[in-house]
Amino acid sequence: MSYRGRAKQFLESQNISIGDIICVKKDDVEYRGMLLDRAEDADELHVVLKMDSGYNVGIAIDQAEVELLERGEKPEINLPPLKIEKDPEKLDVSIISTGGTVASIIDYKTGAVHPAFTADDLLRATPELLDEANISGKAIMNILSENMKPEFWVQAARSVADEINQGADGVVVAHGTDTMHYTAAALSFILESPVPIVITGAQRSSDRPSSDAFLNLMSSVAVAKSDIAEVTVCMHATENDNEVHIHRGTRVRKMHTSRRDTFNSINSPPLAKVKDGKVKIIDKQFSYHQRGECQLEINDTLEEKVGFIKSYPGIAAELLDYHIDKGYKGILMEGTGLGHCPDNLIPSLQRADEENIPVVMTSQCLYGRTNLNVYSTGRKLLSSGVIPVGDMLPETAYVKLVWALGQTSQYQEVKQIMETNLKGEMDEKSSSKYFLRDYGE
Amino acid sequence: MSYRGRAKQFLESQNISIGDIICVKKDDVEYRGMLLDRAEDADELHVVLKMDSGYNVGIAIDQAEVELLERGEKPEINLPPLKIEKDPEKLDVSIISTGGTVASIIDYKTGAVHPAFTADDLLRATPELLDEANISGKAIMNILSENMKPEFWVQAARSVADEINQGADGVVVAHGTDTMHYTAAALSFILESPVPIVITGAQRSSDRPSSDAFLNLMSSVAVAKSDIAEVTVCMHATENDNEVHIHRGTRVRKMHTSRRDTFNSINSPPLAKVKDGKVKIIDKQFSYHQRGECQLEINDTLEEKVGFIKSYPGIAAELLDYHIDKGYKGILMEGTGLGHCPDNLIPSLQRADEENIPVVMTSQCLYGRTNLNVYSTGRKLLSSGVIPVGDMLPETAYVKLVWALGQTSQYQEVKQIMETNLKGEMDEKSSSKYFLRDYGE
Repeated sequence: MSYRGRAKQFLESQNISIGDIICVKKDDVEYRGMLLDRAEDADELHVVLKMDSGYNVGIAIDQAEVELLERGEKPEINLPPLKIEKDPEKLDVSIISTGGTVASIIDYKTGAVHPAFTADDLLRATPELLDEANISGKAIMNILSENMKPEFWVQAARSVADEINQGADGVVVAHGTDTMHYTAAALSFILESPVPIVITGAQRSSDRPSSDAFLNLMSSVAVAKSDIAEVTVCMHATENDNEVHIHRGTRVRKMHTSRRDTFNSINSPPLAKVKDGKVKIIDKQFSYHQRGECQLEINDTLEEKVGFIKSYPGIAAELLDYHIDKGYKGILMEGTGLGHCPDNLIPSLQRADEENIPVVMTSQCLYGRTNLNVYSTGRKLLSSGVIPVGDMLPETAYVKLVWALGQTSQYQEVKQIMETNLKGEMDEKSSSKYFLRDYGE
Repeated sequence: MSYRGRAKQFLESQNISIGDIICVKKDDVEYRGMLLDRAEDADELHVVLKMDSGYNVGIAIDQAEVELLERGEKPEINLPPLKIEKDPEKLDVSIISTGGTVASIIDYKTGAVHPAFTADDLLRATPELLDEANISGKAIMNILSENMKPEFWVQAARSVADEINQGADGVVVAHGTDTMHYTAAALSFILESPVPIVITGAQRSSDRPSSDAFLNLMSSVAVAKSDIAEVTVCMHATENDNEVHIHRGTRVRKMHTSRRDTFNSINSPPLAKVKDGKVKIIDKQFSYHQRGECQLEINDTLEEKVGFIKSYPGIAAELLDYHIDKGYKGILMEGTGLGHCPDNLIPSLQRADEENIPVVMTSQCLYGRTNLNVYSTGRKLLSSGVIPVGDMLPETAYVKLVWALGQTSQYQEVKQIMETNLKGEMDEKSSSKYFLRDYGE
């Protein structure tokens, strides 16, 4: 184990190992939970417990007492490889891990981050997957999703393409939830795919009794086997552990810091739901790409120098000038209301226009659509070259701008790409009825 | 009228005046609507019609033909003052206008922006108000709410205080909707009030059949007469025109670009609703300030040099450095998930900490609460001096930081202010049940 020095002595005094259920008493408080391993570079003054609540707690050992309550199972190391024959009757589904909470499904015994995520690890943890498909798995990176950036979107897209080229009938991407919707939009624009690409994750560690990881993963495999050949996000539909929603990758947003039904389709209903393992389309009139409808294609040139500015009362024009001076190639703005920003920004917006830097306007309301024709402010923005993008989400529009500027550096071409619905990210006639979960189901 | 040159000739050729219903034919398209007045500085190449849809359209007169369909009522100018006796049985309610769509309730005949908003104007347009209270009115500014900035918050707060000092039993503030929630938060922190302060507005012009202005205004006066001595936002509860919600000023956000039920309480239910003129508390356990509970107090020193940064995949640390270099006194961050941002920002956050610039962390999820104790990223942010503010909305936290830095420049004091619930803006134990309008009503 990675405990050193005083912490190691403290634990060994009671012959305690990683995975044991212990009680640490300190200052009249008792902490009960499973002893977790620590990172190699951790200090020697704390021990870390996984509490029943699912959260980890670090306790300073100074003045503390420890007691062994229950011997834990030992983590299994260097297991022999699983020998699983491919079932020719079943579809082949690849599961790619980028890091995040779902990946930790294989680490529930120690709570430690497992560096190598293999198909074997996954199947040992979730053997039920084998009933559904021939599963292969691969960890392509292990980063927290808050550290995702455009170059990782490209890496993920290429890995997905590799799996499809090698015959996968569907691909599941395990991803942390913080920026899952940005990655979903990125894969949507980068890839044309003949098979489903399903992004999933978990809001709660998979060793908690209430973890959402298992249902999300099983449902994702069901979608990967379906005809929905789109980039989708598959996450809990409610707080109950019995139904997931399948959101279009360009229409989805993380709306709650901790609920497991945090992902919601904005300005549209979810594409489908999965209940009892069955995929059911929600809005029959909704069109989506069918399996095999197109060839695999990958357009993965991105322009990373794109700014993301939220308008607010008091915003200074120099913030826009800063982006122009620093060589940003495009700017995504999150305006107020119908897509407005204060008048004092107009000269800098005009400067961006003169320098052929596209400024794309969305709304911080999130729901609804930009309309720069109603008020004078909007008309001034239009004549300053600002590009409103209707009912497209700000996060999706940012990703699309990063992608569009990778395809062309011509302002007019970028404008045309931004104004054209490519992946269901915008709709000429979006209904305002899909507001705050009124999906009309 | 303000039409000049060619536009004036064009209209006078058919003897058309402001307010007439006309038809303009151009390129085989017919535009029917009421001729609106134009701003003094408008060009002479367009005429502007108010269409039945409620939107204004400008039509270039070149190659166009015009026909008078119906003579409009002439706008009344220089009306004699109304002589309305104060009713000693009724409460005194002041209505202050800052501009925006509600103010245009008095302009429905011409659609033009009316520079002087007086009690008389208002009562001529909405005589029903007199049944409710003794009404006085005043236009303190006439700006679109997207142009609101901190100095106008101060101006509005002082005007509200003046009205209260002059005996108002309640104050209604008419405000554009784009930044209404920012102003609501600002008045909440700036003012301690013994009487209700109700902010209202309209999503649709008041000359549209479906305008929300009338119900919002009538309901606001009802709240101004109630015991809810808080700064609240009073806007439609649904798309139907029969019920409004009263949101706490620090808990509300514009969530839709155009729906009239755009304002929603986030992480809490609305305080109350108004139906059939009756104010009804929604959650009986919810505590609020009662009328007369405190003395009027105004703390209106603000620090305008506060940045507002939304974290996104690919964000550069130099954006933070820019704010530090430019002398920003505080930074509001909208992080991902539980309040995270990418690791590459950590050195710049540490620099802000060393220079005693508070960086306050909220979540772009909007719903839920920050928690920097769950993941390693969060713990790194905490040790870099980042101040997480639980379930406070990003917009509210920005306004609070502008206010807090006006009260003190000491990092520790700002931190304490930001972490203390002053006006219902945060809750130690916020329930995650209030998600996307599940108010449990």
